[in-house]
Amino acid sequence: MLRIPYQELFDNLLRVLLKLGFEPERARRCAQLFAETTRDGVYSHGLNRFPRFVSQVQSGIINIDAQPELVAASGALERWDGRLGPGPLNAYQSMERAMGLSREHGMGCVALANTTHWMRGGSYGWQAAEAGFIAICWTDTMPNLPPWGASDSRIGNNPLVIAVPRSYRMRGEPLPVDGGFNREGLLTRDPAAIEASNRPLPIGYWKGSGLALMLDMIATLLSGGRATYQIPPDPERESHLSQVFIALDSSSLASADQVAEQIITHFQTSQRSPEQVRYPGQQVLRIRSENLAKGIPVEPSIWNKVKAI
Amino acid sequence: MLRIPYQELFDNLLRVLLKLGFEPERARRCAQLFAETTRDGVYSHGLNRFPRFVSQVQSGIINIDAQPELVAASGALERWDGRLGPGPLNAYQSMERAMGLSREHGMGCVALANTTHWMRGGSYGWQAAEAGFIAICWTDTMPNLPPWGASDSRIGNNPLVIAVPRSYRMRGEPLPVDGGFNREGLLTRDPAAIEASNRPLPIGYWKGSGLALMLDMIATLLSGGRATYQIPPDPERESHLSQVFIALDSSSLASADQVAEQIITHFQTSQRSPEQVRYPGQQVLRIRSENLAKGIPVEPSIWNKVKAI
Repeated sequence: MLRIPYQELFDNLLRVLLKLGFEPERARRCAQLFAETTRDGVYSHGLNRFPRFVSQVQSGIINIDAQPELVAASGALERWDGRLGPGPLNAYQSMERAMGLSREHGMGCVALANTTHWMRGGSYGWQAAEAGFIAICWTDTMPNLPPWGASDSRIGNNPLVIAVPRSYRMRGEPLPVDGGFNREGLLTRDPAAIEASNRPLPIGYWKGSGLALMLDMIATLLSGGRATYQIPPDPERESHLSQVFIALDSSSLASADQVAEQIITHFQTSQRSPEQVRYPGQQVLRIRSENLAKGIPVEPSIWNKVKAI
Repeated sequence: MLRIPYQELFDNLLRVLLKLGFEPERARRCAQLFAETTRDGVYSHGLNRFPRFVSQVQSGIINIDAQPELVAASGALERWDGRLGPGPLNAYQSMERAMGLSREHGMGCVALANTTHWMRGGSYGWQAAEAGFIAICWTDTMPNLPPWGASDSRIGNNPLVIAVPRSYRMRGEPLPVDGGFNREGLLTRDPAAIEASNRPLPIGYWKGSGLALMLDMIATLLSGGRATYQIPPDPERESHLSQVFIALDSSSLASADQVAEQIITHFQTSQRSPEQVRYPGQQVLRIRSENLAKGIPVEPSIWNKVKAI
């Protein structure tokens, strides 16, 4: 594993995006979203995903100049068409708009149809949180999970759930708990066996299976776009996604910081089991500062591929 | 197990509520919410929970005449104080208000502080769906789950998740998957061992642990009410809850029924595993019609207790 400075990572991604023809400001935003994702330790959806993003631009799956278009508005709720523009830029703009609606109406919701993969969903949560907003957002995906009780993929995962079994497989480590079925239909912690059977488990078994279905329905109904079952089950062609961005303006709430701080303090003083008690984002903040100090870890093979573009 | 007609169940609950001093219209709504919950097969939160509700009214934990009061409004987002009124009535009224806001602003959110247990969370989802609205709602609870990695209860469960391990224990059946730890700290499917250790698992392990924390934070911040850690860990005294009701007006969306129908059709034609593939609510509809036809199943001991009030 090689470590490189954040700026070097950003500069190379920016260079490639400009070479692909991105307008400079959009290239900078897009490079930043990819670089920050790797900086924060979500390696599967940053630099490591960038070559696929580039190939989708080159094959025309992603239209680099397309910007979301307002289709319908009903007060705090708006429907936009992503026109197959770059998923991270479409999602960033949608969250900005949801925050704008929220400033005006107390809350806001942008439902976005026909977009492409947004990479790390958490990016848009950080975007909102850093601007002082509460946010809930999700995306549908191609079918990549069997519903509870089924053996073929009919539902998508969703960003309330960020699953990274591939990183475990790359490290050759077993999962900490059963993560899916093997080809024989038995539950297993072996990521390679789960990839082979194509039967990962939904979060919480039947509960996650139902949750994924409901999120898919809401995203499809609100955006007027496509449902999971209408998206080709091929990561290279995954497109026409439907997403929902809800923002709530918490700026007027007195002592919000203090309330959150107290909840976390109580959470963290739990009696410890062998594992550590962590709040969402805690690990990200630790990895972020470590990576900024020591350099961002990159896979040499992928890094060389990007530098060669 | 005894079966009684729905009307007989409703009439007895109504009689008790009137005897407790409920205003007639509120008594009817409250009796209906309890009776429908049992009718739909969520036995843990209907009639079986009614004696505790009665005792909380008698002990003054629940104030039967208190109605929610508007505390702050910002367009589509409102903050209400439940003033420790009956949880089911407070929740029903909050969802009605969220739908009203949604008619006006496209979407609406009511954050409710200082309420009491709402019984079946799904009631307010059915309420919205039957009125043609998309809804997302949740409540905080007393601390009843150890966070992932901890051994003492510091987080609450939440209604995106409706867990009914008690019903399994009453039937003496093992859980279909690991549901928590035993006293030795090992994962187990034995509901009695999990009750003894007081360490049920959050949905999806660390994912659900983080999800529960985030839902608690949003409910507390928006409502200005109490967080899980501020609620006494005693089912008899569980009160001052914070809840969120979000409604989205889907009435203007063309062909919403058709879109949902197609998603469900695709979901249900999955290749079947030994278990059946069900969508959320499907089992409820089956049980509801069976119970209406054959009579509502009641525990004789609890039924006699209610009739004797």
